[in-house]
Amino acid sequence: MKLKIKKISFESGNIKNVIINSKDAHELGQKAGERVILKNPHSKTIEDKYWVSILQIDHSNSLVQPGEIGIFKDIFNDKKYLKENVILSIKPADPPDSFKYIQRKIKGGKLTTEEINSIISDAVSGSLSRIDLAAFITAVAINGMDNEEMTSLTLSEARSGEIFDFGPEVYDKHSTGGVPGNKVSLLIVPIVAAAGLTIPKSSTRAITSPSGTADSMEVLAPIAFSPEELKTIVSKEKACIIWGGALNTAPADNILIEIERPLHMDPIGLMIPSILTKKLSLGVKKLVLDIPVGEGTKFPTPDNGKQFAYLFKEIAKNVGLEVECALTLAHQPIGHAIGPGIEAKEALNLLKDYSAGPNSLIEKSTDLAGILLEMGGKAQKGKGQSLAKEILKSGKAYKKMQRIIEAQGGNPEISPEDIKLGPHIKEFYALKEGHITQVNNAIINQIAKAAGCPFSKSAGVEIFRKQGARIKEGELIFKVYSESQNKIKKAEKIFNATGGPIILGGMMIERI
Amino acid sequence: MKLKIKKISFESGNIKNVIINSKDAHELGQKAGERVILKNPHSKTIEDKYWVSILQIDHSNSLVQPGEIGIFKDIFNDKKYLKENVILSIKPADPPDSFKYIQRKIKGGKLTTEEINSIISDAVSGSLSRIDLAAFITAVAINGMDNEEMTSLTLSEARSGEIFDFGPEVYDKHSTGGVPGNKVSLLIVPIVAAAGLTIPKSSTRAITSPSGTADSMEVLAPIAFSPEELKTIVSKEKACIIWGGALNTAPADNILIEIERPLHMDPIGLMIPSILTKKLSLGVKKLVLDIPVGEGTKFPTPDNGKQFAYLFKEIAKNVGLEVECALTLAHQPIGHAIGPGIEAKEALNLLKDYSAGPNSLIEKSTDLAGILLEMGGKAQKGKGQSLAKEILKSGKAYKKMQRIIEAQGGNPEISPEDIKLGPHIKEFYALKEGHITQVNNAIINQIAKAAGCPFSKSAGVEIFRKQGARIKEGELIFKVYSESQNKIKKAEKIFNATGGPIILGGMMIERI
Repeated sequence: MKLKIKKISFESGNIKNVIINSKDAHELGQKAGERVILKNPHSKTIEDKYWVSILQIDHSNSLVQPGEIGIFKDIFNDKKYLKENVILSIKPADPPDSFKYIQRKIKGGKLTTEEINSIISDAVSGSLSRIDLAAFITAVAINGMDNEEMTSLTLSEARSGEIFDFGPEVYDKHSTGGVPGNKVSLLIVPIVAAAGLTIPKSSTRAITSPSGTADSMEVLAPIAFSPEELKTIVSKEKACIIWGGALNTAPADNILIEIERPLHMDPIGLMIPSILTKKLSLGVKKLVLDIPVGEGTKFPTPDNGKQFAYLFKEIAKNVGLEVECALTLAHQPIGHAIGPGIEAKEALNLLKDYSAGPNSLIEKSTDLAGILLEMGGKAQKGKGQSLAKEILKSGKAYKKMQRIIEAQGGNPEISPEDIKLGPHIKEFYALKEGHITQVNNAIINQIAKAAGCPFSKSAGVEIFRKQGARIKEGELIFKVYSESQNKIKKAEKIFNATGGPIILGGMMIERI
Repeated sequence: MKLKIKKISFESGNIKNVIINSKDAHELGQKAGERVILKNPHSKTIEDKYWVSILQIDHSNSLVQPGEIGIFKDIFNDKKYLKENVILSIKPADPPDSFKYIQRKIKGGKLTTEEINSIISDAVSGSLSRIDLAAFITAVAINGMDNEEMTSLTLSEARSGEIFDFGPEVYDKHSTGGVPGNKVSLLIVPIVAAAGLTIPKSSTRAITSPSGTADSMEVLAPIAFSPEELKTIVSKEKACIIWGGALNTAPADNILIEIERPLHMDPIGLMIPSILTKKLSLGVKKLVLDIPVGEGTKFPTPDNGKQFAYLFKEIAKNVGLEVECALTLAHQPIGHAIGPGIEAKEALNLLKDYSAGPNSLIEKSTDLAGILLEMGGKAQKGKGQSLAKEILKSGKAYKKMQRIIEAQGGNPEISPEDIKLGPHIKEFYALKEGHITQVNNAIINQIAKAAGCPFSKSAGVEIFRKQGARIKEGELIFKVYSESQNKIKKAEKIFNATGGPIILGGMMIERI
């Protein structure tokens, strides 16, 4: 069938659909969601001449008339010789081989390296639809992936985009997440870099939490860079703290994540390749993995975390990455600050003045940084943390952070006082005396997000007393900052509905 | 957040998405595929005022600018007081409860009736996205549904749309498909109706086969009717042979099928509810189910078919349907004709003249019609088929068919000669002598579809000799009809590539 191109001024996203009139679809014998092969006779190269798209159908003649084919805006950027009113050939296409491999995974089968490569390349080219990929993700969630499959998937995803080369020794830190206030990367990167190791840290913005490393770093310096700019920064400072989203690394992984996220799925079989892929893309060779364990994290018990750690190390080894894992406490926030601006402020405070603490932040940051220093031969086994503390105490980490901020285009003289919070503030006081038996992460996250985190940099929660503290009636326990009074009220509503994040108990355990 | 409506002249389909600018999405903290609650302050009723949509995001300002919300055309038909430039409120929405039930099915859990009702109602309202439903379908394909779940799903799907009431005794016939030339409904309906039973047959158009019952019937009479028109036809003739697509029955089932089809999935857990739902929607009380077994059908062995039959009967009983199943041969086409026009012609020929045959069509039609006559008390157990043959022979079935054709707005005097085939014809001759050991259904289907089936009514395949026949070199074996010489050539290509559908063998089995 021959159809005339109509340009649709609308991007279809990663999946390159086309839309035809229902009358033509009927004649073609194709339904919505099925595949067609398109041919542009004006193109000069085979790759440009033929491509597969997923069909959308206009049942109401509102967008395309019979005889027309609607091509979305993003395909015009991709294909040469594609112009409005050009005549294309269209015919039904069989599903690609990768579709059969997805069916095999649904039936519980194992996929070969070639088969996984085929799924990944068709996901990127758009010949697998979003619902095909949803079926694949669901099948992996139910039937799992074995070590060979995860290894193949990691390599395949990494190869789908740019891979940086920052030399033979590149270090990194990653966290599986789930604990609020986890701004440790803002300390680990300058500590490790100050010791002379290369650590190009790329991270995500917050997805479901009040602040990601990228959100907090953005308070101190720009974080979005092109691949060329990244190379310049890392060649200068051997370090960076940037947002990974502006780089063209591992597009296949991004496509899968775009479907996993609304499905609230993050199966191990895809999660491990996803983490490792991002590391391979940045040329990382040695990694410390922070695995918070406990309620609210991905690993409810230390045993779950341990099992994951062994599996992760094995897949990592298969793809050439040396990994050490650290199971960490996640029962309450790290430090006292939750939110983009307030976390940057807490980190900067500590970088400038070791005595400012807080202890939990010092301990966790130097624990993880210490492991990297040992892996990099900067400290003997067991001596990494004390070296990390020394570097932090000496001010060398702060100086390194200033250079990183400057290299990324920020003001190296920024001081904690420059970081403005609020201006609306609500203070919460203890209504009775007692011991704090629990600081509820989930409620803190809810309150911080109600206050405007992570989109508002000045929003956040500051906690003054944590687990184990003895508090008096009327004592200030935490503050909420927000740019709007309305949002403060929303945070209060959550406090009232939940009873707040700070759980008090007496000393008595049971009355008999 | 408040956004101004921009009307998008484009239907989004069953799933009622909205589209906002990426800047607003970022501020709202929502990603593509996530849910939002919309509020139209101008609406007068709660149901009209609030609704949940799935978010699409415009990253290029091409369709909606910051401050705007794109509403697709089909929502305007649905919602009152929705107008261009009206200001809507939008906020993030948690996934509906039904989303949690889908997660439970993914984890291998069992769903309650209430949970299944919730999935079905959210599928229809659009608060479950296409990828949520793809995950659900995949989970059912892997983890299955038990009898209680299938029962609940059937009732829930049926209740999602209109349910007809054609009285306390309504009969029907259904086939699980997979055998070409299966025009038996064109005979069963008039036979059964001539005996005085009510049989409102609704069927689908061909999906992957060269012709469905609806496609063939359309050669004899119109087949698309509104619910009111259907009631008039059935009250007049107690029978019809129509296309189900124009009725508003079981929209939930249609939504699932729209996602199952491109996924090439038809899990038992959804297939049984889907068949039964359509029967319940038409008020059917007693059903004969034709289960073709063998290569190319859904049931490779008779045992597979038998197992399915027992399961089907049990679920049917749970929803108040009495079912008898017939396992039938599927090793070669029924009769000699494959394609919409040529099948209508073969059926009409037989209705007018019993001696015209063919035998396989007489036997299968009267077998199945006989079961219905016995279920309806028109014949004693074991005597149904001979009564069916009598009705067919007597011309009463033909007269009934004429009245059905007339009631549906066709010409009751239509004769087989009026049904034009071709005009392009290609004849295929035996290249050697031998016995026909196999007639390959899959190759016949391919050739018929290449010739233009099911969209071209005059396209088709006519087979002159079938399995077991002894043929001479040069004997005419089959003919292909098409409206275009080009399509005839495509059919020839398939013949040449596959060696054709007719497999000859000598008498010798093995040479030692």
